[in-house]
Amino acid sequence: MNGAHALMRTLLGAGVDVCFANPGTSEMHFVAALDDVPEMRAILGLFEGVVTGAADGYGRMAGQPAATLLHLGPGLGNGIANLHNARRARTPVVNIIGDHAIGHRRYDAPLQSDIESLARPVSRWYRSAGDITSLPADTAAAVAAACSAPAGVATLVVPADLSWSEGAKVAPPETPRPPAAVPAEAVELVAKVIARGEPCVLLLGGTATRERGLVASARVAKVTGCRLLAETFPAVLERGVGVPAVERLAHLGEMVADQLRGTRHLVLADAATPVSFFAYPGRPGLLVPDGCTVHVLAAPGDDAVGALEALADTVGAAHEGFARQEPARPERPTGALNPASAAAAIGALLPEDAVVSDESNTTGIFLPRATAGAPRHTWLCLAGGAIGQGMPVATGAAVACPGRRVLSLEADGSAMYTLQSLWTQAREGLDVTTVIFNNGFYAILELELSRVGAQDAGPLAQAMLELGNPSLDFVALARGMGVDASRATTAEEFTGQLERALTAPGPSLVEAMVGRGLGL
Amino acid sequence: MNGAHALMRTLLGAGVDVCFANPGTSEMHFVAALDDVPEMRAILGLFEGVVTGAADGYGRMAGQPAATLLHLGPGLGNGIANLHNARRARTPVVNIIGDHAIGHRRYDAPLQSDIESLARPVSRWYRSAGDITSLPADTAAAVAAACSAPAGVATLVVPADLSWSEGAKVAPPETPRPPAAVPAEAVELVAKVIARGEPCVLLLGGTATRERGLVASARVAKVTGCRLLAETFPAVLERGVGVPAVERLAHLGEMVADQLRGTRHLVLADAATPVSFFAYPGRPGLLVPDGCTVHVLAAPGDDAVGALEALADTVGAAHEGFARQEPARPERPTGALNPASAAAAIGALLPEDAVVSDESNTTGIFLPRATAGAPRHTWLCLAGGAIGQGMPVATGAAVACPGRRVLSLEADGSAMYTLQSLWTQAREGLDVTTVIFNNGFYAILELELSRVGAQDAGPLAQAMLELGNPSLDFVALARGMGVDASRATTAEEFTGQLERALTAPGPSLVEAMVGRGLGL
Repeated sequence: MNGAHALMRTLLGAGVDVCFANPGTSEMHFVAALDDVPEMRAILGLFEGVVTGAADGYGRMAGQPAATLLHLGPGLGNGIANLHNARRARTPVVNIIGDHAIGHRRYDAPLQSDIESLARPVSRWYRSAGDITSLPADTAAAVAAACSAPAGVATLVVPADLSWSEGAKVAPPETPRPPAAVPAEAVELVAKVIARGEPCVLLLGGTATRERGLVASARVAKVTGCRLLAETFPAVLERGVGVPAVERLAHLGEMVADQLRGTRHLVLADAATPVSFFAYPGRPGLLVPDGCTVHVLAAPGDDAVGALEALADTVGAAHEGFARQEPARPERPTGALNPASAAAAIGALLPEDAVVSDESNTTGIFLPRATAGAPRHTWLCLAGGAIGQGMPVATGAAVACPGRRVLSLEADGSAMYTLQSLWTQAREGLDVTTVIFNNGFYAILELELSRVGAQDAGPLAQAMLELGNPSLDFVALARGMGVDASRATTAEEFTGQLERALTAPGPSLVEAMVGRGLGL
Repeated sequence: MNGAHALMRTLLGAGVDVCFANPGTSEMHFVAALDDVPEMRAILGLFEGVVTGAADGYGRMAGQPAATLLHLGPGLGNGIANLHNARRARTPVVNIIGDHAIGHRRYDAPLQSDIESLARPVSRWYRSAGDITSLPADTAAAVAAACSAPAGVATLVVPADLSWSEGAKVAPPETPRPPAAVPAEAVELVAKVIARGEPCVLLLGGTATRERGLVASARVAKVTGCRLLAETFPAVLERGVGVPAVERLAHLGEMVADQLRGTRHLVLADAATPVSFFAYPGRPGLLVPDGCTVHVLAAPGDDAVGALEALADTVGAAHEGFARQEPARPERPTGALNPASAAAAIGALLPEDAVVSDESNTTGIFLPRATAGAPRHTWLCLAGGAIGQGMPVATGAAVACPGRRVLSLEADGSAMYTLQSLWTQAREGLDVTTVIFNNGFYAILELELSRVGAQDAGPLAQAMLELGNPSLDFVALARGMGVDASRATTAEEFTGQLERALTAPGPSLVEAMVGRGLGL
């Protein structure tokens, strides 16, 4: 058995049966192996940013890693931004990067570069395979590293000669490191803090924003009166009817200050201490209010859900009676199409069990409220802040969740980063409904331009925020990649087109001409 | 004056007056500065791969660097593949990367990452500015580093607080290190080798493939009988009527073996020793024939053109009488549209002084011969092998060369990497004519699949090379970004559409449905 076959079978044995790929010559033996290992589903992306972002979306929803197949340093480079997001989301991902044959490295051929230096910043585990006998065990170690708590990105570099050499044997799976149990004393300490009755916020992040964590937190809140908040950009937030509702920390520091004002105790459950997304002249970077003490209930890698359940039991919370989200949908909107009416339409129509990949940026500010009382659904956020995540994540989520509708909410500027995702959605027949909020503008940058103290921008500066010269036609762009698309200019058109798109099999796209006003 | 203004003015003072940009919050002060520094032409790209590739194309043609403006580690990440190509092309490029304010780094905010680790593999010079007083000098040093021989990529990281802080002063330009003169003894040694009359090849690369280097080499060849070859993928190759013609080394090792068979002396003029692009089982990586001695006339950073001219004088070459390319154009083709007829059409129509950005990959194999006798033109190749270069390089070349027609020759698969280039071309009204060779196929990978010894590929493997499911419609994609486009399915249609496109002002695109056959 050659190395490529052994690697593929080792991945399968470890539970990795999806591979998002953009292969080149150094990966051709993996491609050739596919017909012998048909249990491995290989999904082609036209660009590596699609590949790595899809692996992120898959890993978030499947709870197990997909593999990626990337071509040397430049292929990895194209995928780095979405690996950065996966790192921040703590998504399990296994990168397989083909490299030159070991003996060929001395020649510094054109595609050679320092792969390790490129990979380390986005990888919690990195190894370059050194020989054919250890390659399968390296593969098993990569999967275990990706799945060990806290989950993350593992990168294995495979020289081409190891792929084509014979004599490899499949390696058994390795057991990943489970989450660390939080000691009872730590839970009791937090229980005592909360019991003081001082204003307290329980901040949920990481693994704690799925239903089990939310339920345990809601039990705690019910009996203690502490408030619940989720981190600003949760990797996976479960919400909707029947799920305890939790507000997210705001994106802007001054709004976070309002949310946390008066808080005396901030208890972190797999969440980071709140900090400003960017620094601004004269504004604080750390967003913990004066006089507030931060307590860590569970750090990344800890069993945050177990700790929250233990906390609920310790404070004597009942197993029922806490608040669960009640049904509440906005009316179908009429009139002008703008961020407010678009959000209402989405809230009115969001299907049961939908998965929402949200990269709507400024246009999306009304979405949390408009969709709060929709049927149960899952919300995926831009965890690492690197735009170009939304459409690839939607693609991977759809692969992970057949039978669930994926709604991909995209800002126009962000959409142009990894628009090639549409082609993969069409090729795989994925049930992804994409909404492009087209306002012809990097709206978030106008906000940021004034926030950094550069508000007196002239026409040359303004021109750098403009996407309208020429206008982007997302209907044409989608059709160019084989995806049905339509354009909506009124709230009624948008609602009707979205309703059709959400029930049509396979992918489709609605371009929402929202304009620049918010519609307040 | 704040740091952003001082940096911009320092760039201008050092001759950098074009900035390709995809800014974010940490770069907003540079954007705000644009109206005060209108001499700086800021050109927006919708994706960082466009930005860095355009800077490569600009630097190759302008002979001075453009700046890029990139957003933290992920923004750099998106631009890495084309910076890899720029590194291999030894193009001067000055990256300006905005980073978090220095005091904000301790918070590990979502967009924070190890920028240095990402930047080092593509940068010959790297610095993270540490304070406002040294920022302008750092900027001048970055420009000098990019322009010092051999030219390359310089990366300056600018924390946001340095951009917004006041008290900066413009720094004077630094003098770049000039090319090193090749000692007369080294030239004489090579002259003696050539004088032996044994089969000798003069291999030209880097700075030696522009007209002055070609003329000097042709003088040497005329009087000594040595053969001339250019490296496989020259960054800038001047050719056409009146320029000494030089064949390029082939891409595939076995064809290089044919080209170099019997050669006893290989003289390198700013070229690397020939090696195989990839390693293949049982094939050599080093492509120098047995019994051939390699002699270095000029290494990277040396004055290769000066050395070639000294060599010509040393061997007693006349200043005229050597071979210059004679006019010879193919007939306008008729019948089926395929790589052969498409190449004939391009050869028949290529305008005087055109700049060709060539990422046609497999479809382009007939182009060198078909265009050899066209009017004088410049050919830009995929120097680093990372696909997604061609359209951004065409964009930057058009900015550098107003009045010259840029012909961007693209394979379908490669086009989908950085197709956003079209939008920048439309926005800036650049005279770029793009031809997409659409064969619905990663044709080069089919070749590579068999060359790595994996020729018995089954349907699952073949599917990973297919771009036809769904078909890409490049006419729709171009129109979606504001670029006029048409589709040609016969040689006559292609010739007619190309002829119109080459004379239309501004950008346009012709999709050439070439099919999979070569048309031999």
